[in-house]
Formats: sequence, structure tokens, C-alpha cells
Amino acid sequence: MEELTMQQIVAFCKSRGFVFPGSEIYGGFANTWDFGPLGVELKNNIKKAWWKTFVQEDANTYGVDAAILMNPRVWEASGHVQSFGDPKMDCKVCKQRFRADTLVENHSKNTVSAEAMTNEELEKYIEDHNIKCPNCGNKDWTQIRKFNPMFITSRQMVGDEKDVVYLRPETCQGEYINFQNIQRTMRAKVPFAIAQIGKSFRNEITPGNFLFRTVEFEQMELQNFCKAENSMETYDSYKQKALSFVKDVIGLDETKLRFHDHDKLAHYAKAACDIQYNFPMGWQELNGIHNRGEWDLSRHQEFSGKTMLYTDPFTNEKFLPNVVEYSIGADRLFLATLCNAYKTEKLDNDETRVVLKLKPYLAPFKVAVLPLQKNLGEKASEVYNSLIKHFMADYDEAGSIGKRYRRHDEIGTPFCVTVDFDTLEDNSVTIRDRDTMKQERVKIAELVNYITKKLEA
Amino acid sequence: MEELTMQQIVAFCKSRGFVFPGSEIYGGFANTWDFGPLGVELKNNIKKAWWKTFVQEDANTYGVDAAILMNPRVWEASGHVQSFGDPKMDCKVCKQRFRADTLVENHSKNTVSAEAMTNEELEKYIEDHNIKCPNCGNKDWTQIRKFNPMFITSRQMVGDEKDVVYLRPETCQGEYINFQNIQRTMRAKVPFAIAQIGKSFRNEITPGNFLFRTVEFEQMELQNFCKAENSMETYDSYKQKALSFVKDVIGLDETKLRFHDHDKLAHYAKAACDIQYNFPMGWQELNGIHNRGEWDLSRHQEFSGKTMLYTDPFTNEKFLPNVVEYSIGADRLFLATLCNAYKTEKLDNDETRVVLKLKPYLAPFKVAVLPLQKNLGEKASEVYNSLIKHFMADYDEAGSIGKRYRRHDEIGTPFCVTVDFDTLEDNSVTIRDRDTMKQERVKIAELVNYITKKLEA
Repeated sequence: MEELTMQQIVAFCKSRGFVFPGSEIYGGFANTWDFGPLGVELKNNIKKAWWKTFVQEDANTYGVDAAILMNPRVWEASGHVQSFGDPKMDCKVCKQRFRADTLVENHSKNTVSAEAMTNEELEKYIEDHNIKCPNCGNKDWTQIRKFNPMFITSRQMVGDEKDVVYLRPETCQGEYINFQNIQRTMRAKVPFAIAQIGKSFRNEITPGNFLFRTVEFEQMELQNFCKAENSMETYDSYKQKALSFVKDVIGLDETKLRFHDHDKLAHYAKAACDIQYNFPMGWQELNGIHNRGEWDLSRHQEFSGKTMLYTDPFTNEKFLPNVVEYSIGADRLFLATLCNAYKTEKLDNDETRVVLKLKPYLAPFKVAVLPLQKNLGEKASEVYNSLIKHFMADYDEAGSIGKRYRRHDEIGTPFCVTVDFDTLEDNSVTIRDRDTMKQERVKIAELVNYITKKLEA
Repeated sequence: MEELTMQQIVAFCKSRGFVFPGSEIYGGFANTWDFGPLGVELKNNIKKAWWKTFVQEDANTYGVDAAILMNPRVWEASGHVQSFGDPKMDCKVCKQRFRADTLVENHSKNTVSAEAMTNEELEKYIEDHNIKCPNCGNKDWTQIRKFNPMFITSRQMVGDEKDVVYLRPETCQGEYINFQNIQRTMRAKVPFAIAQIGKSFRNEITPGNFLFRTVEFEQMELQNFCKAENSMETYDSYKQKALSFVKDVIGLDETKLRFHDHDKLAHYAKAACDIQYNFPMGWQELNGIHNRGEWDLSRHQEFSGKTMLYTDPFTNEKFLPNVVEYSIGADRLFLATLCNAYKTEKLDNDETRVVLKLKPYLAPFKVAVLPLQKNLGEKASEVYNSLIKHFMADYDEAGSIGKRYRRHDEIGTPFCVTVDFDTLEDNSVTIRDRDTMKQERVKIAELVNYITKKLEA
């Protein structure tokens, strides 16, 4: 089978209603993307699956949905105002900006660990190895600069004063600042976690690879608050949970997943690793797990003047919990899910079909209702109307049945229900399975149960 | 029964984990709010109910999830860059800013229709009626000014250039600019609608009334594209659908809902009305329905240079569709839902209970599992673990059973399952209904089916 390219996925997403370029009629905008009718369903299903796994099915995890706009002091405490930023350099010829560490990693084919290098080392490596601009081929670089990739806006104040406001570059601060609120109102006992799904914004100059790196993106993450002496054990357990989620719940191929330990840690961190996925452009970070020590709560305690201490209800011991973070990008996971599910298959009759082998519960449409001929529309509509109370369903009467099957294979619809002339007599329909292409005769009255059972698998 | 006040609802939300003030440990921020563990569930359930009603159950409505950051030309086409803004005036003494139309409406107890008044008429009315600053009681106003309430930020460009970027003040532009993309990829036939749930931002100086008006808020809205001659019929049908949604699906009292036609229409609009809800602070807009004519598509056609014409597949007639908009604020509806569901009831034994009479499918927890005594914990955990595969559930072993019932009444949990000593023998539990407080004995093996059926009602 040929390797799937990123161009193919982008073209597929656009032509099948999954993802359109943002503001496309105005020539696009800043590498933003709009999720179309099928994309919004797939993305919502991924988010629901994550929430079910990590919040609903975990007695010690509590959800939160914090505001995107936060008090600027939050970003002083987090360190973003002072030091956030990747090492960037501009090509003086074509004016494109690049991450110096990425230039080095790409040039060395990932044999050099650029994340452990200082700016001086990066500049020397680029000089010594004569690394040229990937865009225009010249070699005329500025020095490395770090710049703050937070979007900055301002709030209208009384009179004509203005106040600085940042768009959050990460969601996790919403958990830290609500640690006491949630501990208190939910009577939560350490270890417990707070989870959130929400948008973040980074004013990055080199977004790219479709949904992989964008200025506006959605995070699914949780922060576990635990005792220092249990933090490595917690870290290890989230590594396993995170892997199991992308493998078993989302269905990514095990051979395309690997752990990648970080060489360079923040001074406060005890351990950090990624799970990488083998995207069409190579192995890249899909999610991260970090043992952050007591850094986050201690900083907010210092900057807010409010105590972040937790009192153990049994021993009365007071302590600052450690934080283990697990974070995964919803857009990245969406991209990995599509790349992983997209298959071209040769059929017995030598034709090929494209089939999106999504887990049935992730598919945009669970079922499509197809009248064999247009004059069966009344009965087919009746079936369709009974199904939409329970599932996202499509009604499709255009083209031959074969063509309609192919259309729904391509967008991952797990079940196609055909209404034929026998249906009028026996109140049964033919239900075809996307993966096996086998057909079964099912009573209309049994359809909802039949599909519901299959979706649980 | 005493009237519910806004303070009571705010205090309830904070103490029960529904809503906390945003960035609270830093003294709050700009009237932002964070949804806590119970709030995020209720809000998500409201969003799911809306999406199910208007997207899943409507064959002619397609979802979209457009980026918050859009090409600035979008806001030139929409008219926001030029003219968006409410009539505002500042109190020169206390420096608070107010909407002039709201000052007039409040002073006249809604007997005067301020929305139909010009700025000069508003200023004259305020002068003639000696309207004072609601904050400090002085009467020393600036002139009315309109200011642009869009948050403005900038994108890092190559070199050190910057580009203006707005945070979207409304989501609907995401539908207009994707009209052709969605029509084409979904082979949609006019009339059809595009729906979206997403965040918008308005840099308003006078947010207030808790979640009612905030700088950051979430909209649930759809844009129906139809023929001009059918637009009033479409408008009327959305009025009915919108009312039925808040009444039948969300469960708001019919007596607290009313239509309110707009006196003053935008020059392009054919009709506009709100549905108002009787909040603790009075009748206020809950959602809007607007017949916007061909304004939106014609403007984007003009500004983008891309055709927005639709070709009728039967008649080959080319025309610019009209837009009927239906929009409801998720945060406002959250607030109305809580206010509507919050009841204080006198019990037979003369005690009172607070009970949140939410529709079961909207409740944060569907079920709570309560071991009668702590030594029944093992069996109760088994029951709990079997339920969380299917529902958001709570496990609660603190305090007497009566106290735990009250706690779950207050947060709207429709079913409490008690595990007692008989459970160990007969594998049955007692299930108690929140509203009737009646108890039933149910086999553990039947629990999931029992609750699932009740949730469909």
C-alpha cells in the first residue's frame, strides 16, 4: 500500500466536509482551520471519548471549564510573561522565521537532540553544518531570539484606560487556580485530578503541517494533585493510561506509537515524556506527561498570597501537592485518527475502495439510510426519522447503491441500511457492515438495539 | 414560596461546584466565570441537547466549528469594524460606564422602548428625567459615545511586522463564509441550515448579572439559507422551534417565557424578535430570531469577490439565499435553567429541602451510589463501577442517608441508589426518585436499563 501523504489528507478533509481552511474566501488566515459538518462530529466524538475515559470513568477526576481570558497575574505566576518562547531565527533573505531547534533536528534527521542545546550551541551547529533556509535556500540568518508567543489584547476600562489581557497559551492554569475551589466543593481527597477541554492560542510564526501546529488549538488535559512521594508512581500510571487511550479507545496502531523521554527538563520537573505518533511527516508529539513537582501550586501560592496547602483528613498533615500533568491536543489527535483510519483497499472485483476505519463510536454518521429506489423514499424516510432520535444519521438517495456504499465507506459510516421493495412487506431492512461489507437482514423494530450494541464495542 | 434572588443563585453555584468567579485567587477578572465540576456537566448537557434537537434530528442542518480567529476582512464585511457598538456614557464622578438605552429602559421600568431612540433622544430623555448614576448617585454624564467592543490583538508576522486580529464578537460569520464549502461538500439543497456552538468575545464595559452578560460567552446558533419568498415562513417556524426547545427540551416554565418583537430593525432586516425569560432581575433576552434578508451573503460576496449564488438543481435558477438566524446564549440558558429548576419544598415532617428539578438528561450526575454503612463499601463500589461505564455517577459515603439524599436533591441528581445489607443477599438495591422521593427495589443487573429508560423521558 502506498504511503499516505499530508496533501492527500488535506484534500480528503476539504472535499469530504471534514476540515476547510479558515476564512478561505478571504484567502485563508494564519493557519486557522474550520471543522466542517463531518469534522465537527468526529472532533466532538473524540472529545467525548476522552472525557468519558478520564472524567466519567474515574471517580477521582473532576471537570472544569475555565474562562479563556484570565487575570494577567496568572501568566506572571506561570512564568509565561517573563520567559515563554522558543528559539527563533529569521531568514534575512525571504523573511521567514524558523525554530532553530527544529532546523537542527531536521538537518540531523533527529540524531541530534536539539532540545538539550543552548542558543549558542544551536547557532554554532547551524553555522558548522551550513544549514540553509528551507524556504529560499539561502544562508543568511539573524541571531536566535526568543519572543513571547502569547496573543496580547486589552480590556476596555472606565474612561479611556486599557488593561493588558492575554489569550491563554495553555488551559492547565485553570485547574491550578481552582485547586482549592474544587477540593472544597467536591470534598476531594488527594490524590485527585482536575480535567479540562478547551481552546488555547499561541502566536507562533511557524505553524504548519495542517492541524498539527496551529495558532488556535484545543487541549484535553488533566492535572493530578498527589503527594510528592507518590508522584513518580502517578506519572508512570498516566503513561500507561495515556497509551491505552490512544490505542484502545481511539484505535491508533500500536506500531505507530512510541514513548519519547525528554532529555531537557525544566528546573522544577522530575520527569517528562511524550507519546509520539508516526504522522505522514514522521514521528511527532501527540501528547505529553509531566511530573511537575510542586512548582505550579507554589507559584500561585506565592503570587496570589492564597494558601494552596492541602490538609490530609486522616493525619492532619498539611502539604503542597505535587502535580502530574497529562495533556493531549484534540486537533493533533483528530489528525492522527484520520491518518490512522484512512485505508485504500483492493476489492475482489479488482476495484479499490477508500475506507475510513474509525471506531464506530467515533464515526461522524453512525448509520446511513439508503432507499434502493427513489419511490421507496417514504418508507426510507420513516426509518431515517426513527433513527435520528438516537444517532447521527444520513439519508442518501443519489446514485447507485454501490456508489452510495463507497461514499459512506470513505467517510467512515459503520452501517448502511438499505430499504428495498421487500421492506414494504416484511418491515425488515438490509444492514451492511463497513469493514466486512457483509449484509444482514434486520427487523426495523430491532434496528436501534442492533446499532446501539455494535456501537458499544 | 419566596422569590429566588440572583445572590442566592450565585452563592449556590459557588458552594456547590457549579460556577466560580474567574481567576478568583487573583481577585477575579473582568466578569469572567469558571464552570466547576457540576457546571461543566450541566453546560455540556445543555449543549448536547441543543445539538441533538437542531442538528442530529434535522436532516437539513449541518454543523460547523469555525476558528475564533478570522481574517479581519470578515469583520469589514460584517460591518463590525465600522459601526458595531452600543450607546455608552461614562459617569464623570465614579468613572463607571453604562449603556444609555439600558439607563432609560430601567428608569422607565421598560415602558419606554429605548432601542428605537437616537442618541440625541436618549441624551434628552436622561436629561429631562434627571437620571442619575446607578453606582454613585451623581448626575454628571459624558456624551454618548459608541465604541468598538471587539477585542483587538495582533499576529506576529515575519520580521517584526504585526497584523491586526479580532476576537470574533459573534459566531455566525463562520457559517456565512463556509456557505459554499458546506453546500458543495454535503450536496445541500436550499433551504438548509448551518449550525455552530462556540465562544465569542465582547469587550463590554458593563457586563453583569452573573452569567447573563459576560465578556466571554458561548453561542449556540444556526443560520438558515432559504428563498426570499419563504423567509417569513422560515422565520415563523424557528420562533416555534426555539420556544419548544426551551420549554419542552430544557423544561423552562411556560409562564416565564414570552416573545418580544423588536421595534427597531437593522435596515436590511425583515423581522426580528427575542424570546425573553423572567430572570430574577426581570424579563430579559434569552434568544433571538432574525430574518436578515440577503444582507450577509451579499456583503461577503462583495468583500471577498467570491460568488455566493446558489443554483437551484431543478430549475437552474441562480439566486442569493436569504438568511434566517436563530441564536441562543449557552451561558444565559445555563442561568435560566438553574433559576427555573431551583425549588425550595416543604416536606411532610415540616423540614424543607432544596431540590434542583432539572430534566434528568440535563443533570450533572445521573445517579449517586450510597452505601448504607461504610462496611458495605465493597459492594457499593462494584455497583458504582458498573454504572460509570454508562453515566456520570457519584459515590457518596459521608453522613446519614437522609443527609446524602438532601445533598443530591440540591444538585439535581435524579436517582440515588442505596446499597444495604439485603443487597449482599438479593443483589438488589433501593433506587430513590429525586422528585417523588419514592423508593423502588431494583435488581443490580437491571439498573442500567432502568436508568437509561428514565433518562429518555
